[in-house]
Amino acid sequence: MTMNSELSAVLAHVDDNLDEGLERLKALLRIKSISTDPAYAPECRRAANWLSEQLQDLGFEAAPRQTPGHPVVVAHSPDQVGPHVLFYAHYDVQPVDPLSQWHSDPFEPVVQTDAKGNRIIIARGASDDKGQMMTFIEACRAWKTVTGTLPVRVSMLLEGEEESGGPSLPDFLTTHRDELSAADIALVCDTRMWDAATPSVITMLRGLVAEEIEITCARKDLHSGMFGNAARNPNQILAQIIASLRTADGSVAIPDFYDDVAEISPELKAQWAGLGFDEGAFLGTAGLSVPAGETGRTILETLWARPTCEINGMTGGYTGDGFKTVIPATACAKISFRLVSNMDPEKIRQAFRRHVEAQLPPDCTIRFTGHGGSPAITVPSDGAALQKAISALTEEWGKRAVITGSGGSIPVVGEFKRVLDLDTFLIGFARIDNKVHSPNEKYDVESFYKGTRSWVRILAALAD
Amino acid sequence: MTMNSELSAVLAHVDDNLDEGLERLKALLRIKSISTDPAYAPECRRAANWLSEQLQDLGFEAAPRQTPGHPVVVAHSPDQVGPHVLFYAHYDVQPVDPLSQWHSDPFEPVVQTDAKGNRIIIARGASDDKGQMMTFIEACRAWKTVTGTLPVRVSMLLEGEEESGGPSLPDFLTTHRDELSAADIALVCDTRMWDAATPSVITMLRGLVAEEIEITCARKDLHSGMFGNAARNPNQILAQIIASLRTADGSVAIPDFYDDVAEISPELKAQWAGLGFDEGAFLGTAGLSVPAGETGRTILETLWARPTCEINGMTGGYTGDGFKTVIPATACAKISFRLVSNMDPEKIRQAFRRHVEAQLPPDCTIRFTGHGGSPAITVPSDGAALQKAISALTEEWGKRAVITGSGGSIPVVGEFKRVLDLDTFLIGFARIDNKVHSPNEKYDVESFYKGTRSWVRILAALAD
Repeated sequence: MTMNSELSAVLAHVDDNLDEGLERLKALLRIKSISTDPAYAPECRRAANWLSEQLQDLGFEAAPRQTPGHPVVVAHSPDQVGPHVLFYAHYDVQPVDPLSQWHSDPFEPVVQTDAKGNRIIIARGASDDKGQMMTFIEACRAWKTVTGTLPVRVSMLLEGEEESGGPSLPDFLTTHRDELSAADIALVCDTRMWDAATPSVITMLRGLVAEEIEITCARKDLHSGMFGNAARNPNQILAQIIASLRTADGSVAIPDFYDDVAEISPELKAQWAGLGFDEGAFLGTAGLSVPAGETGRTILETLWARPTCEINGMTGGYTGDGFKTVIPATACAKISFRLVSNMDPEKIRQAFRRHVEAQLPPDCTIRFTGHGGSPAITVPSDGAALQKAISALTEEWGKRAVITGSGGSIPVVGEFKRVLDLDTFLIGFARIDNKVHSPNEKYDVESFYKGTRSWVRILAALAD
Repeated sequence: MTMNSELSAVLAHVDDNLDEGLERLKALLRIKSISTDPAYAPECRRAANWLSEQLQDLGFEAAPRQTPGHPVVVAHSPDQVGPHVLFYAHYDVQPVDPLSQWHSDPFEPVVQTDAKGNRIIIARGASDDKGQMMTFIEACRAWKTVTGTLPVRVSMLLEGEEESGGPSLPDFLTTHRDELSAADIALVCDTRMWDAATPSVITMLRGLVAEEIEITCARKDLHSGMFGNAARNPNQILAQIIASLRTADGSVAIPDFYDDVAEISPELKAQWAGLGFDEGAFLGTAGLSVPAGETGRTILETLWARPTCEINGMTGGYTGDGFKTVIPATACAKISFRLVSNMDPEKIRQAFRRHVEAQLPPDCTIRFTGHGGSPAITVPSDGAALQKAISALTEEWGKRAVITGSGGSIPVVGEFKRVLDLDTFLIGFARIDNKVHSPNEKYDVESFYKGTRSWVRILAALAD
């Protein structure tokens, strides 16, 4: 068979075996793999074992690997051909509280038609991330069943602590660097489509630098009658420092802050402009109506491609009920920066500290506490592999797949880059209404079905 | 006898009867009149009864008057001559915790010589306020004993809830307005001398306006990755508003804020300049070294005669351990203003609110909660009665008595002005090292002795 006729046969196999695939997904959904609750540790092991066995059945060398926490399933296809992908997903799920708000047992999946007429499967983990994970495994199954092999080399890394902060994974990656860094690209299936009709690949994630500052003036709390005017008030100083972090036009006012911020390409800008993003509706979900970022830029641009400085917390003095006329000794703030393109977390941290220190009036000392930092992730949007994935998705969905960003960070992607030096394509088929982490979580059967077909196509495309 | 020879005789009587006076003070100090602890309510009643009996013995019409809390002792001298003074003090005391730090029983007064060679009496309330109260009562006793009468009409108001927030007094004053407002002037003995050698009358107290603001942007907490740049951050807005309240030169930046602030007279300014106030030492007690108030003014001036704006508390977002990348929905601050001269609390409140509202960006709402307000108190420093008191104090101490201010508020003085329309002279003989509210509270025997003589002279002077 040629690749094209093979692809058609594999897609036809997916079409003909959807119900069997759904049954396998249901079996996985019945395992109560809540990672954060130690009581469910045996269920996490069950899920890891179930996945290993499924992958072994498909001819993978697969096994649950022990960690200080829940096992990580690592699998390698024996096929020694073509490019090599490392697929990542997680088999653990969020707790189900509040249980009373579920309309059915969270661990007894129900397939039904929803109010919009869509077939959906309801269970904890249906979308996040078991349903998504199984789209890839089912795609591999279809290829193996029809052709006896996979079009590319596939490794898998299926972790069990994503919903509990993933404490074991960074060390695991370091320990298994040689084994895992052999891949050419990572594929992460834990995101959503741009909308129900438009597939997307996320290639930009903002980085993060978090800082805590504590300003001390007097060595004890003072009475504002006895000292008000004479003593410096750290609340006032902190407010002045925070106010100095932003300009009136919404940009960050720290010197050198934008030095390493690259403008996105006109092509990407045009593509984002064409997404039909409804700024008013987006802000409306939060009860807002006017964007707060840099003027003259779209919200998508300021969220995905521009850095931000946010005051995540601040406190000083008396904050209980009633009133206390105190001049506190200290005031604190937690401040974080989201980074883009080539911004260096340490360089930004130092620029921030210099900016703050330069403003300290007499009698004030400041203590900085760093809370970690990670650079932004940007996968070059003109790479050949990315273009192949885009084409495959476009073919499956009949609509041009879009390259998007994310304003947040996805730690595993940073770890893949840092430890394994791997770029990641974030490709997922979830929808915004999937109620992940909430009662009655669902995954559309169409997401599962066309997601599986999408991966069938992507694996073929990457082999070209 | 002429007034002068009468005065000499009365002073001589004080000199000859110091020990008996100290015994009476000790008897009062043995009563455990802790007002804040309901277990000591009977002791508060005992103290009120003891004082009433003492005053009755001196010919006063005196009785404990019931209130919802502890009794108020009201006493009137039957002498229908001359000006009429209303003397205020409080018979209740602070709790004694931590008891282990006392070197003797807090309620078994000890007279001893301290490390500086001064005779002191140690007990809870020795200074605050039983010792001070008894200087006035002993002065009345001396006048009555020697001359059979008092040189002026004297009423007394001895309350029992000063250390527990004085909840009953404002209503009590209102209910007894006719009875109490007949006085010409109030005398409050609950303050200290300028230093151990220099008597003082406090005639200026700053007023207070307290405001709480809550700024709301989004209708729920947001993820700073998903919304950072797009959504307005109320912490940032609050910081900008607070920063806008002060100028770089230490003044308050609210329009119209200083409209009703009068400059103090050159005479008073000169007197304060001559007090020998050590700015460095004062700031040093708080670990500070540079005054924060308006440049070009002394600390005493900014504390006593200039208004201030202090951020007593602020909070927004996540303030616990670690970090949370949240954009909070709300941020709050507690802000108070100390007022001077003719500043109107309501006018200042409205000026503040206008100033804040004018800066609110789109998508922000603000809620103001007023926490009360009271005007500043200023007793004209050129009044005849004040000059008489100053002269009497000067004569007793051999050093010019000074007119000072206080940066804080003393609520009862405001209530006397508001309810009874009475000006108050704050005259006290305590010293800064008296450890009021602390273990081993003491009062110098010299304070008690010369305090009593001071009142003997002031009563004579006011009669002139």
